[in-house]
Amino acid sequence: MQKGLFITFEGGDGSGKTTQINLLRDYIAGKGREVITVREPGGVPVSEKIREIILDRNNTEIHNITEMLLYAASRAQLVSQVILPALNDGKCVICDRFVDSSYVYQGFARELGIEVVKTVNDIATQKLVPDITFFIDLDPVIALKRRLDLSKPDRLEMEDIAFHRKVYQGYMKIAGMYPGRIKRINGSGSVEDTFSQVRKYIDELLCRYKN
Amino acid sequence: MQKGLFITFEGGDGSGKTTQINLLRDYIAGKGREVITVREPGGVPVSEKIREIILDRNNTEIHNITEMLLYAASRAQLVSQVILPALNDGKCVICDRFVDSSYVYQGFARELGIEVVKTVNDIATQKLVPDITFFIDLDPVIALKRRLDLSKPDRLEMEDIAFHRKVYQGYMKIAGMYPGRIKRINGSGSVEDTFSQVRKYIDELLCRYKN
Repeated sequence: MQKGLFITFEGGDGSGKTTQINLLRDYIAGKGREVITVREPGGVPVSEKIREIILDRNNTEIHNITEMLLYAASRAQLVSQVILPALNDGKCVICDRFVDSSYVYQGFARELGIEVVKTVNDIATQKLVPDITFFIDLDPVIALKRRLDLSKPDRLEMEDIAFHRKVYQGYMKIAGMYPGRIKRINGSGSVEDTFSQVRKYIDELLCRYKN
Repeated sequence: MQKGLFITFEGGDGSGKTTQINLLRDYIAGKGREVITVREPGGVPVSEKIREIILDRNNTEIHNITEMLLYAASRAQLVSQVILPALNDGKCVICDRFVDSSYVYQGFARELGIEVVKTVNDIATQKLVPDITFFIDLDPVIALKRRLDLSKPDRLEMEDIAFHRKVYQGYMKIAGMYPGRIKRINGSGSVEDTFSQVRKYIDELLCRYKN
């Protein structure tokens, strides 16, 4: 039984993750591999209920530690119920955000500390680590402009641009901490430009896994 | 500024915690001390929403790790929003269940391990430890009989008697681990018998805190 591939996408809101995920899903499926996509926080009923609490704009009193633990709880359920069984079946799993988001948002931007977030998430994920992580690198001001054309912002999206800059710095830091796993993808060009960078890494990885 | 007193009650469902908490609240208030009571999981709006997810009988697929993290998230919010501010104001806080419940239910009975639960909860509670904890020691079969006369059981209450026996063993173990903090109270007698044991410890503690 071949173990599946676990691929995650990271980056600020508006960096184009969802578009790239859909392209990659179709690309991998086109090669005859079974592939599923999931999103964080959410992805299964219990996690979607947790997501509602996290993103509810009325929950302004939510503490940073509470938020971090809720993300971890949502992740624990998604990992145990969907991701691990799929990987054990040999499927590819593409996840929109994973532990790196918690390192960056809760650990770095909200200043809980990356070590604290890692301690909790090692337990939540049963130490599952992605085979590869794409960080879509896009200037937070450009990302914000792309985003505001789209829809009504939720609680987290309403945070100001200073916060988004901090998130961006956090991603640069994390990318430096895990250079083997996290691939920086220039997201400032066209959708096709961005995807050609992703595809290059995936072709290598699929080739390696075949042998 | 005098720091408040943090008192927690532990024990299986049906052991009579709520009755004792109400008696103790009135007793302490009668001595002219400000006192508040809170319950776990819940106590504040965010935590009540988390409580709904945990206790929903439809959420049968909830993973043990997810459950443990949800309890910790609920606790983190209650600690930061209510318990710590009250203690800093010099109030007495009586809490119906706290970290020991997670040690016993998630760590011991559901076999996640007490160390894992402690790691997560040290973060959730900002290392807040009760000044005193009352473990109402009552045989689980007697507790179950008391309970079934009362109301429709929720998801956790539906677990079978073998689980309740394991919870009881877990409490005995935890009581042995923290003999200075956790006081074993014989809960098999009348409400008054039980409360007289609680009162004896509280009188000592209040006396000590006055000086």
